[in-house]
Amino acid sequence: MTANASPAAGRFHAATASRRQDDGTWAGAVHEGWDIVGNANGGYLLALLGRAMRDASGRPDVVAMTAHYLSPGKPGEVRISPRVLKSGRSFATVTAEMYAGERILLHATGEFGDVSAVHGQIERVLGAPPELPPPDQCIRAVPAKDFPPPVMRNFDLRLHPDDTGFLDGRPHGKALVRGWFRLLDDEPMDTLTLLLATDAFPPTIFNAALPVSWTPTVELTVHVRARPRTEWLRCEFTSRFVSNGFLEEDGLVWDDEGRMIAQSRQLALVPRG
Amino acid sequence: MTANASPAAGRFHAATASRRQDDGTWAGAVHEGWDIVGNANGGYLLALLGRAMRDASGRPDVVAMTAHYLSPGKPGEVRISPRVLKSGRSFATVTAEMYAGERILLHATGEFGDVSAVHGQIERVLGAPPELPPPDQCIRAVPAKDFPPPVMRNFDLRLHPDDTGFLDGRPHGKALVRGWFRLLDDEPMDTLTLLLATDAFPPTIFNAALPVSWTPTVELTVHVRARPRTEWLRCEFTSRFVSNGFLEEDGLVWDDEGRMIAQSRQLALVPRG
Repeated sequence: MTANASPAAGRFHAATASRRQDDGTWAGAVHEGWDIVGNANGGYLLALLGRAMRDASGRPDVVAMTAHYLSPGKPGEVRISPRVLKSGRSFATVTAEMYAGERILLHATGEFGDVSAVHGQIERVLGAPPELPPPDQCIRAVPAKDFPPPVMRNFDLRLHPDDTGFLDGRPHGKALVRGWFRLLDDEPMDTLTLLLATDAFPPTIFNAALPVSWTPTVELTVHVRARPRTEWLRCEFTSRFVSNGFLEEDGLVWDDEGRMIAQSRQLALVPRG
Repeated sequence: MTANASPAAGRFHAATASRRQDDGTWAGAVHEGWDIVGNANGGYLLALLGRAMRDASGRPDVVAMTAHYLSPGKPGEVRISPRVLKSGRSFATVTAEMYAGERILLHATGEFGDVSAVHGQIERVLGAPPELPPPDQCIRAVPAKDFPPPVMRNFDLRLHPDDTGFLDGRPHGKALVRGWFRLLDDEPMDTLTLLLATDAFPPTIFNAALPVSWTPTVELTVHVRARPRTEWLRCEFTSRFVSNGFLEEDGLVWDDEGRMIAQSRQLALVPRG
């Protein structure tokens, strides 16, 4: 248990805590149970890395974060080496790698600042939050042969009933997944939670009726517009381009008052199923 | 003139060349004339940084590239410090900063590989290239009071006539800019050219009829699917979300045979006009 992770802080906070060492690196751990068939979830790794980077920045919120994934993460100790590239008026920019022993797991760079204040009165939004049945009428996937992976037991994810066809082999044919997200046990959500939320859902490709079974992430970028301030988040993930061995997955996270609070894109590989 | 930049290689190649030094850093220069009101264009800086990173990777193509912008670039010498994080079977991942003296201009991380081969036969595309009049019926902006900025004299950019209303104060109201792109003097285009192309067009916001005059880039990510292989590229840039002082600008670059070859997103600030 580190100084940053009291039990009261909740499961997500505890699993993403790390501690500054005398040599300037941060020591943390990939926790058990945050994996998909043995490999730690990419959003979880990003939140673990991002919390150390945010703490090193001295700013309250992650504003923009880019991760490049190099090796799968397994449970165990990791070392994080945040380097503040610039500490400016609006943002501090931090870059860091996460290592498990000598093996590099991921590299990330991010801007950190304060998104609680409203900057600029100009607002124009093209698009609307996904229409979802209430959470209790959505599908909280229960453990089956391959689904959900262990990581999904660490947060409360409710899938739109129309987007769960892939579970019994009847995908609707569109690269689309929608649903609700929140942390468990009323754990409060901060902007670091959004790093997890944008990689928490089943891959869009599962619903696309293509012979693709898994899509390892090459790069994931998350842009945060505001802090979560409602109990549930409305999330929508889509893919438009599957070509030359790649696909992109675009995510939008809205709060339950109609504000778009985070936008994500990942580039993933498309191996055959 | 460096070893990498013969005059025959063309204007873009020459302006983005740099040379490996004995200490492992690369020496290059922000060239005159690649600026917008005095500050070097972000896509140009990324191509200058990216060429050194690609050369350090030993791979032919940039596959994915993320840049975080820290300070405006002015003409003059720069130092680039590429660091190969991992050299894997499919990709080499390289991170680097560009410095002008002691000032950091930008940080980038990218995957480099070979996109000439076709990986995977699975292809599904939702969307189509923008419909554009032939290049000679599009608008090649000619120097006026504020437009085009000097950087646009370094490539051949033809705007869709419907998207040039902002030039005479009659924007169509949509955050949309479409047009053709190619290098000058028949200079061949490689994947590094796509880093330039995705930041070469006027900001979408110019057409949105909002009181916003400039939108500094915080972060720019480019995903490359294939090499350019047609004379012209069809480009489309859109923005959906202007909120809390930020906007995203999404770019799609298609070749003239209907292939989507690069996808980009940047997060930009929205100061008042």
